[in-house]
Amino acid sequence: MHPSETLNKTLEDHLPAAAACLSKLGRRMFFPMGIPAQAGEARSAKVNATIGQLTDGHGGAVALPAIADHLRDISIESTTLYSPQGGNTDLRAAWGKHLQKQGSGPMTSPFCTVGLTHGLSLLADLFADEDTDVLLPSPGWGNYGHIFGVRAGARLHHYPVFRDGKFDTDAIHQALAQVKTKGVLVLNFPGNPTGYTPTPAELAPWLDAIRETKKPIVVIADDAYAGFVYEPGHISRSPFHELADADPERILAVKVDGATKEFCFFGGRVGFVTFGARGPAGDALDTKIKGMARATVSTGPSISQALVLSALNSEDLAEQQQVQLELSERRYRTLKRCLAEHQLSAIPFNSGFFALIPVPGDAEALRQRLLAKGVGIVAFPEHGAIRVAFSSTADEDMPELVRAIAAEIQG
Amino acid sequence: MHPSETLNKTLEDHLPAAAACLSKLGRRMFFPMGIPAQAGEARSAKVNATIGQLTDGHGGAVALPAIADHLRDISIESTTLYSPQGGNTDLRAAWGKHLQKQGSGPMTSPFCTVGLTHGLSLLADLFADEDTDVLLPSPGWGNYGHIFGVRAGARLHHYPVFRDGKFDTDAIHQALAQVKTKGVLVLNFPGNPTGYTPTPAELAPWLDAIRETKKPIVVIADDAYAGFVYEPGHISRSPFHELADADPERILAVKVDGATKEFCFFGGRVGFVTFGARGPAGDALDTKIKGMARATVSTGPSISQALVLSALNSEDLAEQQQVQLELSERRYRTLKRCLAEHQLSAIPFNSGFFALIPVPGDAEALRQRLLAKGVGIVAFPEHGAIRVAFSSTADEDMPELVRAIAAEIQG
Repeated sequence: MHPSETLNKTLEDHLPAAAACLSKLGRRMFFPMGIPAQAGEARSAKVNATIGQLTDGHGGAVALPAIADHLRDISIESTTLYSPQGGNTDLRAAWGKHLQKQGSGPMTSPFCTVGLTHGLSLLADLFADEDTDVLLPSPGWGNYGHIFGVRAGARLHHYPVFRDGKFDTDAIHQALAQVKTKGVLVLNFPGNPTGYTPTPAELAPWLDAIRETKKPIVVIADDAYAGFVYEPGHISRSPFHELADADPERILAVKVDGATKEFCFFGGRVGFVTFGARGPAGDALDTKIKGMARATVSTGPSISQALVLSALNSEDLAEQQQVQLELSERRYRTLKRCLAEHQLSAIPFNSGFFALIPVPGDAEALRQRLLAKGVGIVAFPEHGAIRVAFSSTADEDMPELVRAIAAEIQG
Repeated sequence: MHPSETLNKTLEDHLPAAAACLSKLGRRMFFPMGIPAQAGEARSAKVNATIGQLTDGHGGAVALPAIADHLRDISIESTTLYSPQGGNTDLRAAWGKHLQKQGSGPMTSPFCTVGLTHGLSLLADLFADEDTDVLLPSPGWGNYGHIFGVRAGARLHHYPVFRDGKFDTDAIHQALAQVKTKGVLVLNFPGNPTGYTPTPAELAPWLDAIRETKKPIVVIADDAYAGFVYEPGHISRSPFHELADADPERILAVKVDGATKEFCFFGGRVGFVTFGARGPAGDALDTKIKGMARATVSTGPSISQALVLSALNSEDLAEQQQVQLELSERRYRTLKRCLAEHQLSAIPFNSGFFALIPVPGDAEALRQRLLAKGVGIVAFPEHGAIRVAFSSTADEDMPELVRAIAAEIQG
């Protein structure tokens, strides 16, 4: 049996939802028994002549001083040599521990990706093709459509996050009815561009609808902005943890997260994909995604992974993250205050990096006018709104920003 | 007209070979006018509330000390904030200059990728589908088949690099005859796993055959091991430079290279894709690949790009690279000497990181036996050979390595 068929059979036996949701490409994917696999076996050999790296001959790095001189208190090996396929082993274990603090359901070892986009793209490769209905939040991140629609060629449907200015509790029930054969559902809290995180009561009907899905679905929790929640009473962990132990006949839950926002390491490109699976099915999914990553980037950046691992091992990581959370929260509160002062209404927001402000008329034209005045925001013409990234706006600039927007809207 | 159609039309008008070679996915790809594009326009705005980064509010980074403390003499902004789509602008310009020293043909600004695999994968996305014949070197890197066959679903053909123990000068002429509609041809010098670089006279019939292709083709020069050549008389620059100005009706030349091997920054994941194109066609190809990258990883690791840029700007970069070249060359000569001492013959090699040694019987079984003795090499059973990475073997271990191999082969 071809290795891909063995993997497919394992999924059929142990996690039928995953098997049923594989794309054509996902079905034929496997991890080739090539050089990385053979190099892995030779890792402890006395003479290891497997990998095409230039080393000191004993596994030590021979980095250019022009590169190594910029690094301190971190090993040159961990930063300049290849990482194993799937990521730095210690980092994967450490991120797994980090997730286990949130939930105890089935969970694979987090698979390290090149930022969260790469994780979403690998999942699109595995689970989305022209016979797949992909359900995306609206308003939602534009790149979802690019990844799942333009690139993977799936049928896209956009479900409303809000209806009549409030969280739309019926949205997922209605969205899932559109799945013909198999589906992918993307959840995103705190949301981009909405900046919204629901309460447990608001989310409950979404979770119920998912658990009652008739067609097999992959539920992707995009947790890019995890931790940046500024108001009490909202869900305090990813929906992934509520769904990881859902019926494996119909549901595969997947968590996409990473250091990009959580550790403010935007340029590091360290993301993770964690499947709500264990045992043979978990291993099969790990092998499938490893094969897919081998065909897209091979391994990710060791240097970024080593730095994130170092941060995870840092004793005062929590305090350091608290500083960033407070910075972000202060801007959130300033923006709220300025909006109130100008009697500007926004779509509900309580978390993340953004706020969406409805605008009359052509949002793109408004963006251009604001730009001419030296104010940069992002236009969402399809929602008749503009997005303000309060995360990257200084507290003292917020009044000017809001005044400029109010002047445009209120004339 | 949809943006993808505008790009396709531009290529049809200015570089018909590129238009004819696009895959179905390549044809529908474009760069969405989303957040990165709008953020790009706002870069010089006084108040810039476009990007979902947490900054000091004035474009400065607020990195975690747990990450930033490991970096010195390099800006925290360049290492921890997002790079523009397509890569650090200064790095692209500097790599372009680096290439212009080698050739003066048409050349786009090098597009920065996450290592060379990512470049090859993006090109497979753009130019390979089930109606494409992909011509790969044999022996060749196994991941080519994984990228172009398993993932992109193209028809693979393997052309021989050697025939009767010598460079096969007729190989490409014969290989190109297999292209039904459109093709992708991968050239790889110094080769992996062959460690071979041809002489100009050996390469000439390959270049002639390419220039005479009847069907439109994309010629990818995989120059991963550029610079690591240990014998005189062999080609001193990539075949890309000979082909960049070939007939645009039938040929698109592309260069894939990077810092992975050239700067011994294996874990950095900094590669480049450069098209043999200029003007509107060059811009269209840059937009197509930028759209594809946006859907696979978004941007690459800023930190790695900043370090490579710093290395390129280093005054003694050439001397530092010379040290690594000499280290590698010394191992090359030691391996040659040891092989001669044991009267072991290898497939011709003169460059790169590897040598291929033909073995009788089952190469995989031989690999297992060597592994049991503490010697790790890579088996290529399909070529009845094993690959020795002399690049990662200490000089003083070479005699033991070769003795162990000789004992297995010669009994």
